[in-house]
Amino acid sequence: MKKIKTAIIGAAGYTGGELLRLLVHHTACELMYVHSNSQKGKKVTAVHPDLIGDTELEFTDEVQTEGIDAVFLGLPHGQTKGFLEKHPFPAHTVIIDLSTDFRDESHGFVYGLPEVNKTKIQGAKKIANPGCFATGIQLSLAPAIAKNWVKETAHISGITGSTGAGKALSETTHFSYRTNNMSVYKLFTHQHLKEIKQTFGQINPDFGQELLFVPYRGNFSRGIWITAYFPFEGELQEAVQAYKEFYQNAPFTWVSEADIDLKQAVNTNKCILHLKKEKGQLVIYAAIDNLLKGASGQAVQNFNLAFGLEENMGLNLKSIAF
Amino acid sequence: MKKIKTAIIGAAGYTGGELLRLLVHHTACELMYVHSNSQKGKKVTAVHPDLIGDTELEFTDEVQTEGIDAVFLGLPHGQTKGFLEKHPFPAHTVIIDLSTDFRDESHGFVYGLPEVNKTKIQGAKKIANPGCFATGIQLSLAPAIAKNWVKETAHISGITGSTGAGKALSETTHFSYRTNNMSVYKLFTHQHLKEIKQTFGQINPDFGQELLFVPYRGNFSRGIWITAYFPFEGELQEAVQAYKEFYQNAPFTWVSEADIDLKQAVNTNKCILHLKKEKGQLVIYAAIDNLLKGASGQAVQNFNLAFGLEENMGLNLKSIAF
Amino acid sequence: MKKIKTAIIGAAGYTGGELLRLLVHHTACELMYVHSNSQKGKKVTAVHPDLIGDTELEFTDEVQTEGIDAVFLGLPHGQTKGFLEKHPFPAHTVIIDLSTDFRDESHGFVYGLPEVNKTKIQGAKKIANPGCFATGIQLSLAPAIAKNWVKETAHISGITGSTGAGKALSETTHFSYRTNNMSVYKLFTHQHLKEIKQTFGQINPDFGQELLFVPYRGNFSRGIWITAYFPFEGELQEAVQAYKEFYQNAPFTWVSEADIDLKQAVNTNKCILHLKKEKGQLVIYAAIDNLLKGASGQAVQNFNLAFGLEENMGLNLKSIAF
Amino acid sequence: MKKIKTAIIGAAGYTGGELLRLLVHHTACELMYVHSNSQKGKKVTAVHPDLIGDTELEFTDEVQTEGIDAVFLGLPHGQTKGFLEKHPFPAHTVIIDLSTDFRDESHGFVYGLPEVNKTKIQGAKKIANPGCFATGIQLSLAPAIAKNWVKETAHISGITGSTGAGKALSETTHFSYRTNNMSVYKLFTHQHLKEIKQTFGQINPDFGQELLFVPYRGNFSRGIWITAYFPFEGELQEAVQAYKEFYQNAPFTWVSEADIDLKQAVNTNKCILHLKKEKGQLVIYAAIDNLLKGASGQAVQNFNLAFGLEENMGLNLKSIAF
Repeated sequence: MKKIKTAIIGAAGYTGGELLRLLVHHTACELMYVHSNSQKGKKVTAVHPDLIGDTELEFTDEVQTEGIDAVFLGLPHGQTKGFLEKHPFPAHTVIIDLSTDFRDESHGFVYGLPEVNKTKIQGAKKIANPGCFATGIQLSLAPAIAKNWVKETAHISGITGSTGAGKALSETTHFSYRTNNMSVYKLFTHQHLKEIKQTFGQINPDFGQELLFVPYRGNFSRGIWITAYFPFEGELQEAVQAYKEFYQNAPFTWVSEADIDLKQAVNTNKCILHLKKEKGQLVIYAAIDNLLKGASGQAVQNFNLAFGLEENMGLNLKSIAF
Repeated sequence: MKKIKTAIIGAAGYTGGELLRLLVHHTACELMYVHSNSQKGKKVTAVHPDLIGDTELEFTDEVQTEGIDAVFLGLPHGQTKGFLEKHPFPAHTVIIDLSTDFRDESHGFVYGLPEVNKTKIQGAKKIANPGCFATGIQLSLAPAIAKNWVKETAHISGITGSTGAGKALSETTHFSYRTNNMSVYKLFTHQHLKEIKQTFGQINPDFGQELLFVPYRGNFSRGIWITAYFPFEGELQEAVQAYKEFYQNAPFTWVSEADIDLKQAVNTNKCILHLKKEKGQLVIYAAIDNLLKGASGQAVQNFNLAFGLEENMGLNLKSIAF
Repeated sequence: MKKIKTAIIGAAGYTGGELLRLLVHHTACELMYVHSNSQKGKKVTAVHPDLIGDTELEFTDEVQTEGIDAVFLGLPHGQTKGFLEKHPFPAHTVIIDLSTDFRDESHGFVYGLPEVNKTKIQGAKKIANPGCFATGIQLSLAPAIAKNWVKETAHISGITGSTGAGKALSETTHFSYRTNNMSVYKLFTHQHLKEIKQTFGQINPDFGQELLFVPYRGNFSRGIWITAYFPFEGELQEAVQAYKEFYQNAPFTWVSEADIDLKQAVNTNKCILHLKKEKGQLVIYAAIDNLLKGASGQAVQNFNLAFGLEENMGLNLKSIAF
Repeated sequence: MKKIKTAIIGAAGYTGGELLRLLVHHTACELMYVHSNSQKGKKVTAVHPDLIGDTELEFTDEVQTEGIDAVFLGLPHGQTKGFLEKHPFPAHTVIIDLSTDFRDESHGFVYGLPEVNKTKIQGAKKIANPGCFATGIQLSLAPAIAKNWVKETAHISGITGSTGAGKALSETTHFSYRTNNMSVYKLFTHQHLKEIKQTFGQINPDFGQELLFVPYRGNFSRGIWITAYFPFEGELQEAVQAYKEFYQNAPFTWVSEADIDLKQAVNTNKCILHLKKEKGQLVIYAAIDNLLKGASGQAVQNFNLAFGLEENMGLNLKSIAF
């Protein structure tokens, strides 16, 4: 099989590192170069030392656009548009952007949530990869939105691991602060609500309810937990059935009949869901890995779809489990 | 000053241990005996080894009722009533029960939440110490209930440390499971809702709203975080003012103008609150230590009140901070 | 390709679970049955819920010996011998035992440390898989033993994650105890020293030095860190060269020129080494995942070798990294 | 009682914060001002928010030297000498410096390790407070040094919490890096070895053995664990007796007959020791809180001694325990 010539732009950060960890063992992918302005000339293993033995690549700060079949963009939010203007890739190159810049589906980008947009992604050349909280919340509620069950405010609490804040040092990611601690940030105003509402409006044009989302900083490095609920008059089994049907062709999103916990999904590309009916509410739990299903794993899933590969190619990951 | 002759029943568990840590240095208290059926004959330091150098006491399984001014009961839920029938203490003995058994204020017990019931506690001989989540949630909402501001369902998420589950081994407190993990339990049905609604009904007989409470198991040992909200038409400053007035005589409950995090309260008897107004909701964060303000610290606070001591005697604790 | 018909005995524990996580995606392996006395009749995903979507298998308590090409034994230490007497597998079946029972190479078992015994393993039908600390310590010192450099007592400290203590509940794996804590156990007397000395004696019959090993319980779930040192008169570069040569055909054991940390190896089958020369000592750091290179990953590596497969088949695992 | 007029210089960091947490409740101490160049004009509670309700002080960048009975210096290492030259305090002011600058006992400073130097500290006006690892290691070995038992190289491994690295952000204190991780730094060359050897030479002029010390970065915020050993021909009980005698007047340093773990000492001013005899070695474990007995707690202990107060005044701290 002829391999897909692939590049990663902005490969020194956490999501770039996860892309590397996935792509060095992806049998359909040939990594042509990995780009980083800050780390140019260094070996990849100097920055991602766990990759020892897996790659001899070095970072470059040069951007080659010709002869590239696929490029992943892991630039800071707001820099992608300028980058693509400066470095126009050929029309046949599949561009998968992990930033927020094109999640509004401007400039011909498709929103890369395969559970909702699989057909569009399969034919796309430009894919905007969803945010981490956005992925967890959309997968929690999308089947209910599709059924038009959410007719009042939905209440959501979510807890994210520290890697969601990236590699840059900050007070709230200082170990002595973060360990054993909890706090809330961006109360009801998290920026991912925008892309969530866009998707829900596409699924169901009648949807217009408020989403009150409390995002917590968690005392762990990886993973996102979502609890979402809204008033629901139906039976639990009806809801479980609807969710299973909605995700019947989704190879990573599963409805668990048993109660779940976060680590079931950590270090995998899965989204594991569990539903409950209590006090007149339909309650959905979701567990994902924020760097995988919430970022780089989903990006590779979109890459697979865009190139007509098996959707789970290179993504049968062993969970951390414990 | 003549010291208060004090006993602890069920002193081998986590709340019993915290009582010991507080009372060995409480200058008005003389520990007469510490009781444990399971550990009788052992030195206290064999079970609570951090107390090395602080006490030479041994556990006993004998219950002396005469000559005891104050007794703390740290028995498993459901065992206190039988214990007191078998071991009747004199009428003058102050009984402080940390179990759920008398939180319904039956049998002459007063519900020991000083911020609400200080006057009753000052004259009480029988005090039922509140639950940990109950303390955090009540302190989050009591001023709003008093103002009759909660006119629709209030939404609450809370995260508890593992010590809330006690010393007994269980699958959800196994380190390999719990570390880096999150999960929900007793969704909307936590047993503390009963005592919370009782208090709110006492504060405001008109109150009858639903409380939808999502309790999380957190990946830390100590502390409870509460986020509570409900629709509110007033201004934030009005609410802050009302909360400060409500707690003006409370030496441990503080309204922070700045954003807060959990560890500010850990290893202290404080409840630290912060208020926000966003999307038409009044949102309250609360941070407590589940074993102190949520259990043994509040028990000592009640002890101080019952004996007319300074309310914060022996409770000026250094926070863990980091 | 005809698949290797494989069974797992004792598949409900941590090492059994890791075997399952590896083998469900191992393209040369067909899982015939997974055995557990305690969980018989349950779905595998009821016990290892992170495997949702990966397997529909159920645990059985029946042991089929015919038609099985390979069997992994994950029984408690001391039970394997009796099990094999009761359930004799045909002579052609490859038996890979993860317990300590045959690590003395009795009953025709080969000690399954590929970096030392690869040739023997390639022809073996009975393989005794090394212990976790044993793997880390042997890989730290084997090249130096081979060179006869260790001529005085070697000093070793090692820190293990909690999963080394297994799934059974215990006081030292209670979350409220273990989190933020450190302690030492089996000081200088850890049972793995026996198999370590056996290997070192095979590598170098002149070796007879004492190994003083301080094993720590670490505040994390996965991983083993080893620091080992002994007086060394040579140059660092000489040692680095010797280690690289010793491991030149080892696909998982790498000598890093840069300093290392534990998480580089966690959730992989790698052993990452780093050498220093300081104060006249050669110092070796090693990082492995106790459940993978220290148990189930190495077992699959042995499986690959025994069946003439690529040594790293099914073992190109994505590290947790963060 | 007339209170001791006290100032803290450099009070915005971790050790400064711990001094504040201790001194706001120290009944013999009156805090005159707290100094910080970086935080001047801010309320103390803006930087140490857990102190809400405990102090209304604000940071100042002015240094008042007159009328100050005691000053604690928490400046970065290397800045104290210049500071004192610029701001000469009167001869009667007790100066307690937490930096490394005067631990060599230059300029009239006494090394403030009360277990060794109590008499000198009681008469001192200038006290150099020991380092955190230095405290743990010295208390582990001092009685053996005094007995002249250490006649060969002593081997030491130690694990420190992240707060030892202070408040400044760094890659090795980034939560996503540090959590679940282990690594070694400053192998055999930690700067505290200098003050340790100085003390040991004072205790026993014949002492001149090498100390091989492996310092680990631990996956927790507070605490230092030390394991130290050397060949010893005597009986364990002889050693235990010697240690108990050496520490008989030390109110915070205890020899536990039972095995110990780190958290027994965390958030207290205690040093808890345990001794073992194994493989011909005397092995000593020590547990301290790096910020308390290893820094600010010991500074207050020195303050108490210098002013003739009870040595444990304000230092009967509740351990975190869990």
